[in-house]
Amino acid sequence: MTDLHPFLEHLSAIARAVTVGRAVPAADNKAGAGAYDPVTELDRAAERALRAAIEEAFPDDGIEGEEYGLVRADARRRWLLDPIDGTRALICGLPSWTTLVALMEDGQPVAGFIDAPALGELLVGLPGATMLDGRPVRTSACDDLAAARLSSTDPYLFEGGEYEAFTRVRRSVRLARYGYDALAYARLAAGHLDLVIENKLHRHDWAALVPVVRGAGGVVGNWQGGDDLEAGAIVAAATPGLFAQAIAALNA
Amino acid sequence: MTDLHPFLEHLSAIARAVTVGRAVPAADNKAGAGAYDPVTELDRAAERALRAAIEEAFPDDGIEGEEYGLVRADARRRWLLDPIDGTRALICGLPSWTTLVALMEDGQPVAGFIDAPALGELLVGLPGATMLDGRPVRTSACDDLAAARLSSTDPYLFEGGEYEAFTRVRRSVRLARYGYDALAYARLAAGHLDLVIENKLHRHDWAALVPVVRGAGGVVGNWQGGDDLEAGAIVAAATPGLFAQAIAALNA
Repeated sequence: MTDLHPFLEHLSAIARAVTVGRAVPAADNKAGAGAYDPVTELDRAAERALRAAIEEAFPDDGIEGEEYGLVRADARRRWLLDPIDGTRALICGLPSWTTLVALMEDGQPVAGFIDAPALGELLVGLPGATMLDGRPVRTSACDDLAAARLSSTDPYLFEGGEYEAFTRVRRSVRLARYGYDALAYARLAAGHLDLVIENKLHRHDWAALVPVVRGAGGVVGNWQGGDDLEAGAIVAAATPGLFAQAIAALNA
Repeated sequence: MTDLHPFLEHLSAIARAVTVGRAVPAADNKAGAGAYDPVTELDRAAERALRAAIEEAFPDDGIEGEEYGLVRADARRRWLLDPIDGTRALICGLPSWTTLVALMEDGQPVAGFIDAPALGELLVGLPGATMLDGRPVRTSACDDLAAARLSSTDPYLFEGGEYEAFTRVRRSVRLARYGYDALAYARLAAGHLDLVIENKLHRHDWAALVPVVRGAGGVVGNWQGGDDLEAGAIVAAATPGLFAQAIAALNA
């Protein structure tokens, strides 16, 4: 683990070399007719570059990426790659897209990063610390739902009871912002947002968020307050007290 | 009007000198108890700097700003100032806040700019052209609602029939993004979004958007398709065909 921090920085630079300074790319539709799941050549090229760098450094580790699937499924360590989270933002020329990398050990995320190349902002989450451009960051001290700054990517992803649960939280907080994908968790780790609530995340969406938020002192769990994130319904909070209030409001 | 373009660029630089490179500011609440309308010292300082520059160049013009009210209400020309649009984004450390300036003649916006200092992106709207960093930009050619990229700042601002009307459009488009305030209109003018639908905008929110979008070839009107924007319900589209389809869906 000694060299993990510089290796994660190395990986972020590898991805940026592919993604930064390009024109807004055209998108293909990965989904079938009647649905829309955009992917661009930048997604694919960045994932290929990340995979090659990991293969060279850690040839025994597993690798699972959004675009190219899984190798070495039985390895104890596995790298989870989302070369571009927020492809919808990218293809709209909006700067909130990120590159996400997580290292899982025995199924648990232990380190990772959220890199926002268009904003020049890299957050590396390690056991016990989260670093922003080499300096440690902390979540805010907010422990009052009524004072919290909330973010969620797309409130229309909430349906039925989830919509009602989210609305209870939304009506309780000071302000709510939308549209930031994984960047919201970076802002939470840096102390500028207090609460992020989302659902329908894939493992490659949430794995990197966990070490970044926890390393900065925040709390990440599911909508029931538990640690199992596999269902993709995520609550991230600046403090344990705020997390508990958000869970209570979601389940009121 | 000859010198309007360099003067608008000058004003954007005046505001950036106040707003850029600062720490994320603390917010005061302009609204009373039970509501929240944040304002920061940067809002106030940027508006003071803009007012001073306009007073010096055009002492007979009216000036109306979000923070400091109206002077010379009877002047034929009036400058509308929103020193920081997206204060909620700013205080969350998110880069989508903008500075908006519009020049109104006889009550109609004829020129203005959207400046996103945190992104280094200035769009100047003039009669017949919109310039991004000195180069003319055009809206996209999208004239099909099913292919459109839609944005709106906060879908929870739509209530009752407005919510249903917006939902009809949202369900018809290719993708929807949230949270960008005036930056969405800049991205529309630059060809990367196709449609923006909002409500509850104040005049200082929408005045600068009109010359920027129209100068790039786009269409701006109200939810009924008319030109009167005073009610603050705005539709901006890349093409007349897309605008007509959006109006039809809103009023179906």
